[in-house]
Amino acid sequence: MPDSVNKDDDGNEGLVFAVDLGGTHLRSSTVSKDGKIHHRRKQQTPRAAKAEEIVHAITRAAREFEELGKVDGRCIRAVSVAVPGTVNVDEGVIVKAPNLPSLEKYPLCAELTSQLNLPCVLENDANAAAIGEVWRGAARQHKTIVCLTLGTGVGGGIILDGKLWRGVEGAAAEIGHMCVDPFGGVACTCGSQGCLEVYASATAIVRMARNGRADHPDSILNNCNELTAERVHKGGAAGDELALEVFQRMGIYLGIGIANLINLLDPEMIVIGGGVANAWSLFETHMRQQVVERAFSRLAAHINIARAECGDDAGLLGAARLAFDRMS
Amino acid sequence: MPDSVNKDDDGNEGLVFAVDLGGTHLRSSTVSKDGKIHHRRKQQTPRAAKAEEIVHAITRAAREFEELGKVDGRCIRAVSVAVPGTVNVDEGVIVKAPNLPSLEKYPLCAELTSQLNLPCVLENDANAAAIGEVWRGAARQHKTIVCLTLGTGVGGGIILDGKLWRGVEGAAAEIGHMCVDPFGGVACTCGSQGCLEVYASATAIVRMARNGRADHPDSILNNCNELTAERVHKGGAAGDELALEVFQRMGIYLGIGIANLINLLDPEMIVIGGGVANAWSLFETHMRQQVVERAFSRLAAHINIARAECGDDAGLLGAARLAFDRMS
Repeated sequence: MPDSVNKDDDGNEGLVFAVDLGGTHLRSSTVSKDGKIHHRRKQQTPRAAKAEEIVHAITRAAREFEELGKVDGRCIRAVSVAVPGTVNVDEGVIVKAPNLPSLEKYPLCAELTSQLNLPCVLENDANAAAIGEVWRGAARQHKTIVCLTLGTGVGGGIILDGKLWRGVEGAAAEIGHMCVDPFGGVACTCGSQGCLEVYASATAIVRMARNGRADHPDSILNNCNELTAERVHKGGAAGDELALEVFQRMGIYLGIGIANLINLLDPEMIVIGGGVANAWSLFETHMRQQVVERAFSRLAAHINIARAECGDDAGLLGAARLAFDRMS
Repeated sequence: MPDSVNKDDDGNEGLVFAVDLGGTHLRSSTVSKDGKIHHRRKQQTPRAAKAEEIVHAITRAAREFEELGKVDGRCIRAVSVAVPGTVNVDEGVIVKAPNLPSLEKYPLCAELTSQLNLPCVLENDANAAAIGEVWRGAARQHKTIVCLTLGTGVGGGIILDGKLWRGVEGAAAEIGHMCVDPFGGVACTCGSQGCLEVYASATAIVRMARNGRADHPDSILNNCNELTAERVHKGGAAGDELALEVFQRMGIYLGIGIANLINLLDPEMIVIGGGVANAWSLFETHMRQQVVERAFSRLAAHINIARAECGDDAGLLGAARLAFDRMS
C-alpha cells in the first residue's frame, strides 16, 4: 500500500493531540490538518485531582495515541488543551477555573511540554469551540461569528474577522454573564444576578422546571426522580406544558442576549451549541421572536442564527486548529 | 520668519478638514497631524435640508478654511466627515441616519471629493469620538477601549487592539441599544424596549425627571418652563431630591451596561463622554457600584472607567485621525 493513502490532502502527516479537559470528562483525540479526527478517547476527569494526576491522565492518553499513530505512520507534533476557565495563552497557564481548582496558576503547558517533548497550546474551551465551528462546523466560510455553548454553564467565543477576541486579560466573551434581567431576582454563581447563564444553561433548565412543578401538578416532570435538562427536553418534545414553558422562557432570554450581541458586534452569524441546543425546536421560535423585536431590523434581517454542527468535538477540533495555526 | 515655525513636529504641513455633522449643529475645523485644531467653526445644520444644501454648507466652510490655511502656509489634504448614522466606510455613503434622512444613500464622499478635489473619509460620529479619545483624550496610550457618548441618544465606539470594530454591516457598537431592562416597559425609538439609551441619554434624563415631578411636588424641577438634562444636572448639584433620583437610576443602568461590556469584551478602559457625562459626580457612585456587583471581580478590579477629555472635539479629532491614517 503506498504511503500516500495516509497523507492529508496537503501531504502533511503531522497530528495534533487535542484534549478537551472538562470538570467531569477528559476527552482526547488525534486530529490531522484536514480536520479529521483519527482516534478518540473519553474518560472521567480524575476526581478532586491534584494537578499532577490530571497531567498524568493527559500524558498517558498521549502515549497511547502515539503508539496508534505509529501504526498509521503519523507523528504527534503538538498538544493542545481546551479548559473550562480563563487562560493566559502566552504563558500557557490557567488563570481561573472554578471546576478545576488544582490547575489554577499551575504551569500546565510547561509541564506537558516537558513530559511529552511537544509544543503545547492552551485555550478556553468555549473559545476553542468557536474556532472548531468556524473550521469544520456550522460557521465554515464565516469570519465574524459569536458562538454560544449552552452546557452546565453558558460559554462564549467571539471571532472577529477570523481572529479570536480574547480581551486584554484573556477573559472576553463571557456571554453567560451578560445580564439579561437585572432585577429578576435570580442569583448567578458569578455574584451578579440575571445573567444569561441563569436562564439558558442546563442548570437553569432544571431549576426552572423544578420551580414550576407546584403550578403544574399534572406535568410528567413531577414523576422524575432525577430531573435533568435532557428530561425536560423530552418532556417538551412529548408536549408537556411545564417543559414547554421552561423552554419558552429560556428562548426569550437567549433571544434578548443574542439581540444584544448583534447590536454590539454586528457579526455574520450566531452559532449555538452545547447539550441544551438539542432542544432547539422547543426554544427557536421564542429566541428568534426576541431578535426580531430587539435587534436593529437591518441586522436582524441578515443575521444567520444556527445550531452548531461539531457536537462534542467542537472544542477538540478548535484546540487542534489553534495548534496547527501556531505551528504554521 | 522661518517656515519651520508653522510645521508640525514631523514636518508635515498638511491639514485635514474635519466635520462633525450633527442633526442640529455642523461643526468643522482644520486639524494638523499632531492633533492640534487650527481653526474651528460651529453653525446650524441646514434645517430640513436637501443633501445638496448640506454639501454646500460643508464646501463653503472648507473654502473658508482653505483661505485661512493659506495665511498659515498650510494646505488641506483631505476632508473627513463624522455623521450620526450607519456608514458604509468603503463606499463613503451613509446607510442609515434618522436625524439626516436626506443623506441616506447619498454619495456624500464622492460629491465632496468632486467639489473640493480632496480625498474624503466618512465615519460614524460615535466611532470617530472613540478614535479621538484614544488619539488625544482620556484613552491615550490605550489600545482596547469602549467609548460611550451620552448625548440626545447614546452612541458607542469599540476599539480593539488599536482598530475600530465596525462590524460586518458597519453597524457595530450600538451600545445605546443594548437591552438593560427587557421588561421594564420603557419603549425605545429603535422598536425595542429597555435599551440603555432610554435610561442614560439626555432625552431619558428629561423623561425620568418629568415623570417624577408628581411624586416630588417640592422639586425645583417643577419650576422649569423647559426641562433639559442640563437643568436636571444643575438641580442635582443643588441637592434636589428628584434630580438625584434621576441620576441614580441613570447610573445604575449605565453600570449594568458597562458590566456587560466588560464581561463581553474585557477592555482596558471605558470612556464616557457626551453632554450627560457632565453630571459625572451625580451618577458615578451608582454606576461603579453596579460594575463591582456585576462584572467579573478580576476585571472590575482592573478596569479604568473615566470621563472623556476631548469634549465636543472628540468627533472632529477622530475624523481627522482616520483621514491621516488613510493617507499614510
